[in-house]
Amino acid sequence: MKEYYLGLDLGGTKILTGLADQEGNIIARSRRDTEAAAGEETIIKNMILTIEDVLAKAEVNKDQIVSLGIGSPGPLDATKGIIIENANLPWKNVPLVKKMEAALGIKTLLKNDANAAALGEKWFGAGRKVDNMVYITISTGIGGGAIIERELFNGTNDNACEIGHTVIDPDGPLCGCGKHGCLESFASGTAIGKRAREAAAKGLSKEMLELADQIVEDINAVICAQAAYQGDEVAQEIFKKAGYYLGIGLGNVINIFNPEMIILGGGVMKASDLFLAEALATMKKTALSGPLEIVSVKEAELGSDIGLMGAVAVAMEDRLVKNG
Amino acid sequence: MKEYYLGLDLGGTKILTGLADQEGNIIARSRRDTEAAAGEETIIKNMILTIEDVLAKAEVNKDQIVSLGIGSPGPLDATKGIIIENANLPWKNVPLVKKMEAALGIKTLLKNDANAAALGEKWFGAGRKVDNMVYITISTGIGGGAIIERELFNGTNDNACEIGHTVIDPDGPLCGCGKHGCLESFASGTAIGKRAREAAAKGLSKEMLELADQIVEDINAVICAQAAYQGDEVAQEIFKKAGYYLGIGLGNVINIFNPEMIILGGGVMKASDLFLAEALATMKKTALSGPLEIVSVKEAELGSDIGLMGAVAVAMEDRLVKNG
Repeated sequence: MKEYYLGLDLGGTKILTGLADQEGNIIARSRRDTEAAAGEETIIKNMILTIEDVLAKAEVNKDQIVSLGIGSPGPLDATKGIIIENANLPWKNVPLVKKMEAALGIKTLLKNDANAAALGEKWFGAGRKVDNMVYITISTGIGGGAIIERELFNGTNDNACEIGHTVIDPDGPLCGCGKHGCLESFASGTAIGKRAREAAAKGLSKEMLELADQIVEDINAVICAQAAYQGDEVAQEIFKKAGYYLGIGLGNVINIFNPEMIILGGGVMKASDLFLAEALATMKKTALSGPLEIVSVKEAELGSDIGLMGAVAVAMEDRLVKNG
Repeated sequence: MKEYYLGLDLGGTKILTGLADQEGNIIARSRRDTEAAAGEETIIKNMILTIEDVLAKAEVNKDQIVSLGIGSPGPLDATKGIIIENANLPWKNVPLVKKMEAALGIKTLLKNDANAAALGEKWFGAGRKVDNMVYITISTGIGGGAIIERELFNGTNDNACEIGHTVIDPDGPLCGCGKHGCLESFASGTAIGKRAREAAAKGLSKEMLELADQIVEDINAVICAQAAYQGDEVAQEIFKKAGYYLGIGLGNVINIFNPEMIILGGGVMKASDLFLAEALATMKKTALSGPLEIVSVKEAELGSDIGLMGAVAVAMEDRLVKNG
């Protein structure tokens, strides 16, 4: 009997599920609205519908599935399989693994989305050939996942690699976590949007205001990037400064993890030409020469499939470590 | 035939060598001046003399020795067994492992002193009962070593866990590494001494000047601590500020490594009552609640034997991981 794996990328607005063969090739996929507002029951029902859908499409039976991997925004307790809280989903302390296993009879594994993405890039993306790497996602927030000797570094209670919440300047801006000067408060999409609104409110950027129909509150990182591409120097400077702080974060990651590779992903990377050069220059000044010598920085390869392939990698990790 | 292990703590002024049984009990020890100024040949000769000394004292034969562990200040290449450079020893690119193996016929293993100390505290000190811990030494500099799932985390080319050279404020003081605002530039003994001299030069502390016979250049962290204990508020403030920055570093370490335990060692810890409370308070504000919940902070237990027991742990690591 052929064996298969399921990966489920649980997002605030959509669920993307894939059925993978033993090599991690996606042979069927299904996408569905999360319907987060409708609550726990509905969300889980929608998750199960995507799974039934891929099984039907591929004509695969449940008992051919080795395991289901789920990638979800955190904070969550991966060991206990519980989603503790979630900014975009209306649930708290949901024993998701237990519920999915009860509903499907399939062994289920849960990881936070950054850790899942790290596994995805390690096994199916830019990190295929390395044993030690750190994946960093620059998105609404900044998250990370480290692979050490080919395995995900979970930490004692699955909280390792919260790179976004390392303080790189205690006098820096207020972060969503309540601290000042976290990497995330300088270099995330949220931070860039905030800097952009501040600049626009001061009358420093007509371009951004125009792009937002004169509504300061509507300015975000995307508009800031558009303005920067149109030549707005204030917007360009905002990205450059974010790049500077990201570079300090990358340098610190190198000095701590001494990885072979750093892989950068997340939505903000779509505008990487606005900040990456600055980030790399600062990184080179921040990192010690020993670990800098052997590290390379790559962009994530999985694109919009990173959540899905990450979830598949969560399901397959044991097999991949053994055979891969 | 009974088996034994050798540990050698190589310092800039002294060599301390111990012979350990299979449980890591020291059954003979030998201490000798390094004679660093006399050069490479002499240093290695002195190392060998301490080894011959412990073997003679314990009436143990060379062929009963499983391995020799050496802890040395870095930077070094542990995998290749080469000391790359050293601030206190007059050598560069010395293939120390090869030379010791050629001279003694004993398998030799080399680690930097902070990593060796981490192994020592893991197996023989405060970390005996934990699987995931980070050891941080606060001394002339600030170094670290992480134990992940009971094994030393080396990084790709043995440069992992350089916590002292993570930037926590890019506008901070100049560090020995050439960067600004490394943790080491705020909270090491060297940093405290610098802040103390700056304060004394400004006429802010008569006590420190008195303790240094009015010679500003002679003020160091030890004098600053003496003045602080005598009630000098400027000196107390210097330690408190170092503690604040150390706390940021500890919080960052928690957010990255998610360890069960952080162990603090190094000479500056002798004055821990001057800064540790501030460090822990800041750490609690810096760390995320998830990883903070499960971490404890302890002082190193091995005291002046940490270098020696670290070296023994380097020699015994394979055995300890298997049996311990």
